[in-house]
Amino acid sequence: MRHPQLKPRFPTLGEPPGTLLPAGDAPALASRISLIEYNAAECRETVFATPEEGLAYRPQLPVLWLNVYGLTDPALMQAIGQRFGLHPLVLEDILNSRQRPKVDDYGSYLFIATRVYRYQPDSQRLQHDQVYLVIGQGFVLSFQTQPLGVFTALRERLQQGRGQLRQQGADYLAYGLLDAIIDDYFGVIDQFNANVEQLDKQVLSGHDRFILARIQRQKQEAMRLRRALVPLREVLNVLTRGEHVFFQPGTLLYLRDAFDHTLHLIESLETAREVISGMLELYMSAQSNRLNVQMRVLTVITIIFMPLTLIAGIYGMNFDNMPELHWRYGYFGVMAGMALIALLLGFVFWRRRWL
Amino acid sequence: MRHPQLKPRFPTLGEPPGTLLPAGDAPALASRISLIEYNAAECRETVFATPEEGLAYRPQLPVLWLNVYGLTDPALMQAIGQRFGLHPLVLEDILNSRQRPKVDDYGSYLFIATRVYRYQPDSQRLQHDQVYLVIGQGFVLSFQTQPLGVFTALRERLQQGRGQLRQQGADYLAYGLLDAIIDDYFGVIDQFNANVEQLDKQVLSGHDRFILARIQRQKQEAMRLRRALVPLREVLNVLTRGEHVFFQPGTLLYLRDAFDHTLHLIESLETAREVISGMLELYMSAQSNRLNVQMRVLTVITIIFMPLTLIAGIYGMNFDNMPELHWRYGYFGVMAGMALIALLLGFVFWRRRWL
Amino acid sequence: MRHPQLKPRFPTLGEPPGTLLPAGDAPALASRISLIEYNAAECRETVFATPEEGLAYRPQLPVLWLNVYGLTDPALMQAIGQRFGLHPLVLEDILNSRQRPKVDDYGSYLFIATRVYRYQPDSQRLQHDQVYLVIGQGFVLSFQTQPLGVFTALRERLQQGRGQLRQQGADYLAYGLLDAIIDDYFGVIDQFNANVEQLDKQVLSGHDRFILARIQRQKQEAMRLRRALVPLREVLNVLTRGEHVFFQPGTLLYLRDAFDHTLHLIESLETAREVISGMLELYMSAQSNRLNVQMRVLTVITIIFMPLTLIAGIYGMNFDNMPELHWRYGYFGVMAGMALIALLLGFVFWRRRWL
Amino acid sequence: MRHPQLKPRFPTLGEPPGTLLPAGDAPALASRISLIEYNAAECRETVFATPEEGLAYRPQLPVLWLNVYGLTDPALMQAIGQRFGLHPLVLEDILNSRQRPKVDDYGSYLFIATRVYRYQPDSQRLQHDQVYLVIGQGFVLSFQTQPLGVFTALRERLQQGRGQLRQQGADYLAYGLLDAIIDDYFGVIDQFNANVEQLDKQVLSGHDRFILARIQRQKQEAMRLRRALVPLREVLNVLTRGEHVFFQPGTLLYLRDAFDHTLHLIESLETAREVISGMLELYMSAQSNRLNVQMRVLTVITIIFMPLTLIAGIYGMNFDNMPELHWRYGYFGVMAGMALIALLLGFVFWRRRWL
Amino acid sequence: MRHPQLKPRFPTLGEPPGTLLPAGDAPALASRISLIEYNAAECRETVFATPEEGLAYRPQLPVLWLNVYGLTDPALMQAIGQRFGLHPLVLEDILNSRQRPKVDDYGSYLFIATRVYRYQPDSQRLQHDQVYLVIGQGFVLSFQTQPLGVFTALRERLQQGRGQLRQQGADYLAYGLLDAIIDDYFGVIDQFNANVEQLDKQVLSGHDRFILARIQRQKQEAMRLRRALVPLREVLNVLTRGEHVFFQPGTLLYLRDAFDHTLHLIESLETAREVISGMLELYMSAQSNRLNVQMRVLTVITIIFMPLTLIAGIYGMNFDNMPELHWRYGYFGVMAGMALIALLLGFVFWRRRWL
Repeated sequence: MRHPQLKPRFPTLGEPPGTLLPAGDAPALASRISLIEYNAAECRETVFATPEEGLAYRPQLPVLWLNVYGLTDPALMQAIGQRFGLHPLVLEDILNSRQRPKVDDYGSYLFIATRVYRYQPDSQRLQHDQVYLVIGQGFVLSFQTQPLGVFTALRERLQQGRGQLRQQGADYLAYGLLDAIIDDYFGVIDQFNANVEQLDKQVLSGHDRFILARIQRQKQEAMRLRRALVPLREVLNVLTRGEHVFFQPGTLLYLRDAFDHTLHLIESLETAREVISGMLELYMSAQSNRLNVQMRVLTVITIIFMPLTLIAGIYGMNFDNMPELHWRYGYFGVMAGMALIALLLGFVFWRRRWL
Repeated sequence: MRHPQLKPRFPTLGEPPGTLLPAGDAPALASRISLIEYNAAECRETVFATPEEGLAYRPQLPVLWLNVYGLTDPALMQAIGQRFGLHPLVLEDILNSRQRPKVDDYGSYLFIATRVYRYQPDSQRLQHDQVYLVIGQGFVLSFQTQPLGVFTALRERLQQGRGQLRQQGADYLAYGLLDAIIDDYFGVIDQFNANVEQLDKQVLSGHDRFILARIQRQKQEAMRLRRALVPLREVLNVLTRGEHVFFQPGTLLYLRDAFDHTLHLIESLETAREVISGMLELYMSAQSNRLNVQMRVLTVITIIFMPLTLIAGIYGMNFDNMPELHWRYGYFGVMAGMALIALLLGFVFWRRRWL
Repeated sequence: MRHPQLKPRFPTLGEPPGTLLPAGDAPALASRISLIEYNAAECRETVFATPEEGLAYRPQLPVLWLNVYGLTDPALMQAIGQRFGLHPLVLEDILNSRQRPKVDDYGSYLFIATRVYRYQPDSQRLQHDQVYLVIGQGFVLSFQTQPLGVFTALRERLQQGRGQLRQQGADYLAYGLLDAIIDDYFGVIDQFNANVEQLDKQVLSGHDRFILARIQRQKQEAMRLRRALVPLREVLNVLTRGEHVFFQPGTLLYLRDAFDHTLHLIESLETAREVISGMLELYMSAQSNRLNVQMRVLTVITIIFMPLTLIAGIYGMNFDNMPELHWRYGYFGVMAGMALIALLLGFVFWRRRWL
Repeated sequence: MRHPQLKPRFPTLGEPPGTLLPAGDAPALASRISLIEYNAAECRETVFATPEEGLAYRPQLPVLWLNVYGLTDPALMQAIGQRFGLHPLVLEDILNSRQRPKVDDYGSYLFIATRVYRYQPDSQRLQHDQVYLVIGQGFVLSFQTQPLGVFTALRERLQQGRGQLRQQGADYLAYGLLDAIIDDYFGVIDQFNANVEQLDKQVLSGHDRFILARIQRQKQEAMRLRRALVPLREVLNVLTRGEHVFFQPGTLLYLRDAFDHTLHLIESLETAREVISGMLELYMSAQSNRLNVQMRVLTVITIIFMPLTLIAGIYGMNFDNMPELHWRYGYFGVMAGMALIALLLGFVFWRRRWL
Repeated sequence: MRHPQLKPRFPTLGEPPGTLLPAGDAPALASRISLIEYNAAECRETVFATPEEGLAYRPQLPVLWLNVYGLTDPALMQAIGQRFGLHPLVLEDILNSRQRPKVDDYGSYLFIATRVYRYQPDSQRLQHDQVYLVIGQGFVLSFQTQPLGVFTALRERLQQGRGQLRQQGADYLAYGLLDAIIDDYFGVIDQFNANVEQLDKQVLSGHDRFILARIQRQKQEAMRLRRALVPLREVLNVLTRGEHVFFQPGTLLYLRDAFDHTLHLIESLETAREVISGMLELYMSAQSNRLNVQMRVLTVITIIFMPLTLIAGIYGMNFDNMPELHWRYGYFGVMAGMALIALLLGFVFWRRRWL
């Protein structure tokens, strides 16, 4: 069993904090920077080829959403940090690529780190990616290691002007992004639950000798998902308290709704964990049951054959004076006696449900 | 084993929040809308065939109770939302049909989501339905997926003018509805406890090979009920704090009483869980006990028969010089010796309580 | 195993709250109402035959203690409620006869529900009764389902004027009643602990096949007692906070002392629970130990007898050319060899502590 | 196993609180009262033969430390209570001799109950004694059931004027006494840990059949020590909050240090508990391992001997036509074959690590 | 198994608090005192041979960092304490050399105790050292029992003027030291996790009979690391609250980042603990599985050979009238029958997957 989650983030040992090193283990994708700006009437998308282009661009609509794929380019981060006045720690956190879900208030903007989970198509292993949001007055920045498709539906809604997204400000957009991330978990947890149910069916059949290892993999996946969802719940809990100036009261109601969804997801995981621990008990009990059955068979066979073997042994003795040996039907009588004993014992065991 | 609780709500992925989609998996009942209006002297009930009828209707008595069965009709929800000024999130939550018990304060009204449990008559599986309440100044709205009969007794009391219900305002009516929901749990938990006691009797008899699976089903049912009751307790805890303007001080005393009932129910579930975990231990121990008994029987039989078989083997040897073989009563002596050994060993085991 | 604690209170379904129904399952005792009134100098006791007598009676001394046995008479409750201005919910709670220990502040009086435990003399099963207190300015009401003897010593002290009881007001009397209830638990828990110690002695002897069921009964009794004591501790915790006008600062010191006693009782129960869970482990281990011993015996016997039986079998073969068979002392040599093998194996097992 | 901790304090049932009864189960030591008074320059010790002497004595130095051994004399307690203005509950608590560690604020003085543990020299059982402190302005009272030696080093330091004890007031003396009590635990827990390590060595050797009972005794001792230390930590936590006028800011720093020591002790106990629970697992696994070994031996022996016995049986058959029987080296061939089979099977098992 | 963590700090029993005794069990290294002073432009390092040199030295740059190796010299501590005005308790804590991670606020400076862990190169055992920090206005003191290399990278950065370290004040230096300590844990926990993964691979192979003991050593190491990290998290939590005047708002952001790192480390440990407890279950199950396999083999062999042996026994009987014995191919028929029975039983077991 491999435990990918056993690798803690290895920090840039000996480097001053704020040093921007590329996160080496992420695949080196060409960074893709796109800016969506909109108001109720209009929505424009611009894609920048270089950071410099972005620095030179002047947006004209009130709400900005800058989305960045690929977090391995320190120069790009530096440019974005400079353009939006971000603290070096924010940039370091984003480049670092292993953050617990959290919200940090930097006064003029909020930095939110979240995780998104995927089942790898080939190995069916659970894998996570980081998604970062920066929320300020009139702008939202989103950062992903690679195009994950989490925000695709939202972007379409924005471009088509469906829902109230275009009527609202950057705070509602920020809610929309968080809600998209939470909605993404529903799909993952549906898949996870399907796996649990499938495994549950195999526990009692008991033919698979790796079932215990698989039960434990499920258990650890539940832990991993929980460990991402609990701090995400905390992030939403902090936001709904309404202490941040970025969110208007109307948006807080929506955030509370998103918070309820995280509660629902965590509850669903709790249920799955109970089902899994029930499986463990069933598995252990099935193992012990099989031992019982084997022992019973052994005992029954031994009890039936031992007396018969003894009788055969007795009439194989070589004493001069053994009258039975000379009886005409002695042999047949002994054989009949043996059969009788076997039948009788068999009947007793059948009555006691040992057979 | 099926785990119906493993299905989290699958949200309307990609749809803007507030989009009202019919909750597809609920049976498409014809919605039934009925309005009860009353004061101390009078009580009228009106049934609306269409939402439009309802929108046109002008009530004449001070307290209104609108009850709706069937939550699959977005147009109806839209109409009710418009008539009572409800937030789109409330309507979305109601149509969604999978909500944790919760209370949301929308300023001019409270939205309360609760669950009600039933044992399916045929499969004896535990099943839940959502019940929603909206509590405002002078009105209470209640929403159920189907007629559950939870409020039947309350409606009769209202129509017959029994109790103080008619003398009081909408807040007392809201308390009455919550109390009816809590009372409903007493019946379910009585049935659950009866199932637990019945199972408890079968654990020691041990004939049923599916007993472990059934113990675990009970355990999971206890979890499910607990998971509905704990947030319901929280709902009542929040209401009794008296921070909401909808409840008068006199009604708060009644809410506190309902809160005590939820504590009582949760405690009863805790007890059941302990009984169930005791069953698990008994079951495991009974299994191990049976192994012990079989092993003992095997050991006793082996110890008694092995020496006898050896003796028979010895006198079956073909040595020329074996004086015992030629003794007149050698054979009978050996047989007597064998019987003696068997009796002696049997006595020893009987004394050691191995038999 | 019966689990009397699995029955939750079945409320008066469909009845308006405040409806006073007799608590049907309590034995219909003739209600007995007695009033003790006292000051530092004097103490009078009056017994009322009917509620009407009580309503007509005018007390003359400053502190009143009304004690009622039997809670099945709604009319009596109604009369007391009217006389002392009690809320219908208080009367309903008292008649209901299954309440968690709690304290409710009704402004002009406090309502306290507690439980008292008894071991049934015949079946040695733990059984509980409700005791209710109402504490107001200048009066204390106490309600019991039947004469339990909890307050006997207190009443005698009051009548004889011993201690400072007569010098103090109704608040100190209320403390005295609570202290009497807590003192009562010490006796019950002493008995419980004696039972636990007795059981502990039987675990290792292992002759009783129902020991596991009895261990679990003890465990459940510990839970039941704990479940009564923890809310009782909370009741006293609330009272010692001094937020209620009924208790003078001097009495608060005494209440804090009573609070410490509940902590002590709960700690004693915790210890008992650990002892019980230790018993469970011992029991399980003893079971597994016995399996070990049986397996060892079986293995030893098999190892000793199998080679001997083989040797006997070999010399029972019918080959023409088996020179040993014709040796003069062949038979005796083989017998000596068998004895040697048996002794040798026996010695080896003895050295390895298998025997 | 005896569980001395299963005895809760049996209160003076039916006696009014504040009644001073001798604590009957403590050995009736002659009470010994000694008073130490000191300032920076001087330190005098006076021993009183009778309470009356003490009542008559007028101290001349600013800081008083009254130490009392033996808590069975109500008259003495009454005298001390009168002299220092103590509340009857304090005196009752001291005479009672079974108190949880706690601190009670009586306004003009603090009452602190603590426990001190000892290993009985003969039985190596853990035993506790109560130590009580009363801390007021300019005086500290300490009460012990018997001379425990906890304060010996402190008294010597005081008399010799070492450290800053003599320069400071009664609050620093009180800290010194508490610190001495905590230091005392370090010795006890060192001994406890030594016992745990010794037991740990015996678990794997497995010769002692009472090892499980001893593991559990250690576990229960850890619980007992923890149950004394956790409230002691709370006592120090309360004192360090600085809400009591008796302690000067400078002394609070020292109390915080003592508080850190209790944290350290509790942590050491936690570690011991984990080691003990690891032992339990090892013990269980060793038991199951031994079963495995026996089963393996049995299986191997059975598999080797059964075919050989069968072969011997076959050539013991009495058929007329069995050509092998008449071969010249038939017997020797069969013997060689048997040896070959035995060697082969032995080799197979050796390869599979079954031997 | 040795449990080095079972040794609580044995305090200087009977000594007044503040007595400075050398910590006897630490290797008596020659103390090494070095002072680094710096501003944005310059950085000087001075090494003192004796405490007196240090006392005489007058620093000229605004920020001071005094680093001390070896904590066994009370005179040195006394000198440092005098120079920087430290409380005797701080000096006692440092000399004591066993402190829980904690932060103490002494008004004009903070005292922070932390631990650093190392795997001993030879025995691969986890070992810890204390690192203490004192943070005041314009100076930071750091104390280590021996040169641990934790601060090497930081010192180089300071001397080379890399990062913003030289631009900032003593508070940022203090953050830098804490961050270096936390970074150090990442390395240790990486090693720990590598050990866990390696062990995980060996669990299922099952050849190592000490695997259970090794699993438990890992478990205890996880506990030890956790026990150092949780209070370290608390230290950072306290510092980030911003109640201390030593830290400027800008530095608080960095402290919060360090706090996040401790959360990350603790989470990584939690994961490791779950993996370890999964191993325990796998190990137990593998043991029980092996028992199952042996039992199955034994049962199969017994069932196959017992009937054959019986048949051989029957035809070894000496009855006069046994017609089969005289059949020409009787012997061969019986042999064929035996082979048939053996094949048949083998086939049945193969179908049932018992072989």
